[in-house]
Amino acid sequence: MDLSLYLVTDRPLSRGRPIEEIVSSAIAGGVTTVQLREKDTPTGEFLDLALRVRTITRESGVTFIVNDRIDIALASDADGIHVGQDDMPADVARRLIGPDRILGVTAADAEEARTAIAAGADYIGCNAVFATPTKTDTGTPLGIAGLEELVRSIDVPVVAIGGINTTNAAEVLATGAAGIAVVSAIVSADDPEEAARELKRFTER
Amino acid sequence: MDLSLYLVTDRPLSRGRPIEEIVSSAIAGGVTTVQLREKDTPTGEFLDLALRVRTITRESGVTFIVNDRIDIALASDADGIHVGQDDMPADVARRLIGPDRILGVTAADAEEARTAIAAGADYIGCNAVFATPTKTDTGTPLGIAGLEELVRSIDVPVVAIGGINTTNAAEVLATGAAGIAVVSAIVSADDPEEAARELKRFTER
Repeated sequence: MDLSLYLVTDRPLSRGRPIEEIVSSAIAGGVTTVQLREKDTPTGEFLDLALRVRTITRESGVTFIVNDRIDIALASDADGIHVGQDDMPADVARRLIGPDRILGVTAADAEEARTAIAAGADYIGCNAVFATPTKTDTGTPLGIAGLEELVRSIDVPVVAIGGINTTNAAEVLATGAAGIAVVSAIVSADDPEEAARELKRFTER
Repeated sequence: MDLSLYLVTDRPLSRGRPIEEIVSSAIAGGVTTVQLREKDTPTGEFLDLALRVRTITRESGVTFIVNDRIDIALASDADGIHVGQDDMPADVARRLIGPDRILGVTAADAEEARTAIAAGADYIGCNAVFATPTKTDTGTPLGIAGLEELVRSIDVPVVAIGGINTTNAAEVLATGAAGIAVVSAIVSADDPEEAARELKRFTER
């Protein structure tokens, strides 16, 4: 699992372009993990999309994570699942996916992170580092200092998410975060491949 | 599994009353199977509700089926799952739930039903017998003659759904259908327990 450049998909922010097209471009630009996140897509259609993304990610050796939906993750043989605090509890998710698939859990602070790790989380998604228009249901942004403290206080990889782009990627990675997760910086870009490539320069330093 | 009086929940049609309250009343009135159907409920909240309905149905010996969401069915230890033609394909659903849980599949005609049975369906939900305001995405109603033909042509139980109420329950059951499934006839009733009891008179004949 290489979490260094972590793409989270978002249909409404993709400007009408197919998710698979964004994913393929982002992988060509250097994305190492793809999290497929669909909110209002019927299950059958969601599964069809997940199977296509599974094929694309497998061919390129990229880790494939499904957001929230363990049924879709299992049916598409995803590498893992990512759950937020309003999704399936981490311990239940771990039980359903078994010991081998990756479990990522969103945590807003060290306490939520430690609970998630005790329940079997393999990595923590730290949400949000900076304020972002993508997610409106998150609390006060952690900021660089808060992220640094979180990274220091837990012993699993932390993926930073929330308002990350080329202007702040360097300082985010300097905290010791295992990776940067982006949504709009790639999915809304005119050229998602080039956008990924620009971010990749920071993770390869 | 007793499919004879089969309640399908529907939050928007429940007139603001809690799902658990409707379910408890309907069981008191004689419902034998409860299918929990939620469309826009976040996963964590959906699971909490499913666990409460699991407790209620287990205490009363009523079969508990989850609509569409295999993750919720597994996490709440439901007795089974019901999938429509736009949900997870029946063969994938069977693989995910294992051999022991109940698999119900909605079919509009004998061909869809036979495909579902070959994939492991334990019963068929026939949708729709009559036109109904609850579901707007179904095709031409089968009618009594169409239902009778479907029941005759397949060898698993058929649960009839779509516009069933006390005025037509007798002729629906006369086709040989294993049960009648209702949504609004119970969840929108002033007294869901009494509404279930009135329907129960037909299934007990």
